[in-house]
Amino acid sequence: MDTGRKLKVALLGCGSVGSEVARMMTTHAEDLAARIGAPVELVGVAVRRAGRPRPGIPEELLTTDATALVKRGDLDIVIELIGGIEPARTLITTAFEHGASVVTGNKALLAEDGPGLYAAAAQHGADLYYEAAVAGAIPLVRPLRESLAGDRVERVLGIVNGTTNFILDKMDTSGAGYADALDEATALGYAEADPTADVEGFDAAAKAAILAGLAFHTRVGLDDVHREGITEVTAADLASAQRMGCTVKLLAICERSADGASVTARVHPAMIPLSHPLASVRGAYNAVFVKAAAAGQLMFYGAGAGGAPTASAVLGDLVAVARHRLGESNGPGESAYARLRVAPMGDVVTRYHISLDVADKPGVLAHVATVFARHDVSIDTVRQQGKDGEASLVVVTHRAPDSALQAVVAELRELDTVRDVASIMRVEGE
Amino acid sequence: MDTGRKLKVALLGCGSVGSEVARMMTTHAEDLAARIGAPVELVGVAVRRAGRPRPGIPEELLTTDATALVKRGDLDIVIELIGGIEPARTLITTAFEHGASVVTGNKALLAEDGPGLYAAAAQHGADLYYEAAVAGAIPLVRPLRESLAGDRVERVLGIVNGTTNFILDKMDTSGAGYADALDEATALGYAEADPTADVEGFDAAAKAAILAGLAFHTRVGLDDVHREGITEVTAADLASAQRMGCTVKLLAICERSADGASVTARVHPAMIPLSHPLASVRGAYNAVFVKAAAAGQLMFYGAGAGGAPTASAVLGDLVAVARHRLGESNGPGESAYARLRVAPMGDVVTRYHISLDVADKPGVLAHVATVFARHDVSIDTVRQQGKDGEASLVVVTHRAPDSALQAVVAELRELDTVRDVASIMRVEGE
Repeated sequence: MDTGRKLKVALLGCGSVGSEVARMMTTHAEDLAARIGAPVELVGVAVRRAGRPRPGIPEELLTTDATALVKRGDLDIVIELIGGIEPARTLITTAFEHGASVVTGNKALLAEDGPGLYAAAAQHGADLYYEAAVAGAIPLVRPLRESLAGDRVERVLGIVNGTTNFILDKMDTSGAGYADALDEATALGYAEADPTADVEGFDAAAKAAILAGLAFHTRVGLDDVHREGITEVTAADLASAQRMGCTVKLLAICERSADGASVTARVHPAMIPLSHPLASVRGAYNAVFVKAAAAGQLMFYGAGAGGAPTASAVLGDLVAVARHRLGESNGPGESAYARLRVAPMGDVVTRYHISLDVADKPGVLAHVATVFARHDVSIDTVRQQGKDGEASLVVVTHRAPDSALQAVVAELRELDTVRDVASIMRVEGE
Repeated sequence: MDTGRKLKVALLGCGSVGSEVARMMTTHAEDLAARIGAPVELVGVAVRRAGRPRPGIPEELLTTDATALVKRGDLDIVIELIGGIEPARTLITTAFEHGASVVTGNKALLAEDGPGLYAAAAQHGADLYYEAAVAGAIPLVRPLRESLAGDRVERVLGIVNGTTNFILDKMDTSGAGYADALDEATALGYAEADPTADVEGFDAAAKAAILAGLAFHTRVGLDDVHREGITEVTAADLASAQRMGCTVKLLAICERSADGASVTARVHPAMIPLSHPLASVRGAYNAVFVKAAAAGQLMFYGAGAGGAPTASAVLGDLVAVARHRLGESNGPGESAYARLRVAPMGDVVTRYHISLDVADKPGVLAHVATVFARHDVSIDTVRQQGKDGEASLVVVTHRAPDSALQAVVAELRELDTVRDVASIMRVEGE
């Protein structure tokens, strides 16, 4: 190790995470130097708008010219916390071209073009680290990429978006509808002014793509992830879940098929039993289960977002990458050798909870049951409630391919005796 | 990377973990090669007794001469799964001297002489990896050593011994006494014929020493860990815990003091509220909470022991160390720069639950309360139960230094009105 060296670090983006990273690089400077084996120096911070006060960051470090910063040529590490696709992608690849390694928390970009970034890193002998991109402070990328590297991951299942978890939690505990719960989340700062990325499941889908890629050593892009958000979840769904001893969570699920030949990745709301550990994950917390052939079931839990927790993940990566710079080595690059087939949602084996508004007359259940039987979907439980000539029928199925379940729903909609398919939700976690 | 190479691996010990490692090295050979970047070849397996059938391991690989095996001179990696201090220590240092890196699951040896092993590894430019030494398959060493390397760990608290957890769980759910619960654990294979290492807390204390060292970048040896086992825990303690809405768990707790200048490490049974996530960790599972300044509270959960889960941890390390061999680099070595003072148990701030058998007459509570006050220990709750001239008094304190709490107990024993200090247990997890 070259111990006389000082490592030069540039920071792109100085929002809640970036400012915390800059602060910790100062306050933890001695610890970081001791743990790395050399001091790290923050030599530049690219911001969008100049002139704003940035407490704790010397003004001479600030620049609005991120491109010039990553082109300096003397940087060891670039920390990218701008987010989004561009200019982040160009800045990262430019950083590689100019000899730097990169630490990023950019889940959208990794899900969009992870292979391209990995290739650029490999071409220039640089590291690409991104623990902060998934589940904030929770070590998840490193365990999947390294700790479980000798095992065979079968499933990753978890809550990876705090905003939607807060909203669903609120709906569950207060009986509020989606719109009211979203308003409260916005007022409390848990949801952004434009909540689309969270509530439509884009953020969780990006994380699912990253996790599936790591877990299965196979390229999984955002387009490969089946995505349903929580905007259609109703207070009635939550009430129905409660009657079943369940709650509703937005889950990211990456699975290897039973024969091992294909994988699936999906994000959708699902009912899970209250007895499942994920049911008690509250507010903005994240929790992820990883099931591997030899390790069995593992669970990781912690703060899924926020400035300080995410900064902790960034700085852990910074230490690792800095050590590699000193040792002139690299951490793991892309591992996509398995090239498993990414199967569509129809291949996923799951269970449905279906609420039907039906005519309250004899023979309806027989009609309905015939549709399930025709698609080889076996019924677990049926609950009938009748009042005033109307009746509701709640059917929970056994496990079946999603395509069969969808075919059942399509046929039910056509039945004369079925007035409305009031809600459909998958049941997971059993 | 030298991609034409084949990495040579020797395995020392072929018990439940070792045989699983050997099996997985064969069945996962292609995956391992792809993830490492070169094939790994098992070139020798040291066993204590020759002539036993070892399914899946070619007989020509077996040897009873472990020393000759590690001295071959062409080994890349030695996996040590013999356990205990000697001959494991000599074999590991001999492996380093002959150019190999080492993966081990030997918690006793690491707690006894981690610094010596680290120094030997550093001297020879080798890696020392030991994820399997703590909490089986749960990634814990790597998160502490790497993921949280940019943060400041404040506390590690968890259940790290499955045998004692099984016994306490059994006592809790069935009302059985310690001896009966131990018998059942032995019959089911959860406890060894000589259960001392588990039930007296030695195993958990070794893990606490390792975790504290990693968490606080300070050398913490087995002698630095305050250790109390579960052999004195009674059915009455469990019943008393249940009345408080608690259960009893054997906890390993490593803490940084409030001023940051010292650390403590301890293993003892403690009452924890049923609402605490650790309360629901059942049977042979392990769970560990890590609290860090920026990351906040993290939890790791999974199988704490067993052949396959522990082998998963070993193989994860094998992949990492193998990659370093190819890249001619090293993973993190010992990090003990912080040299924090390791404070004695008396400095620990905790709460006591004390059951007293007292004379059933007026003034007893005043006597007892005076003793607490004299040592500046504030009382949270008192519960009195009287019958037939005898009475029991259950006192739960607020947080106070363990030394003050111990002084209180010593004085209570001397009081004429106190017939017996029936039980003392710390209360944690709030």
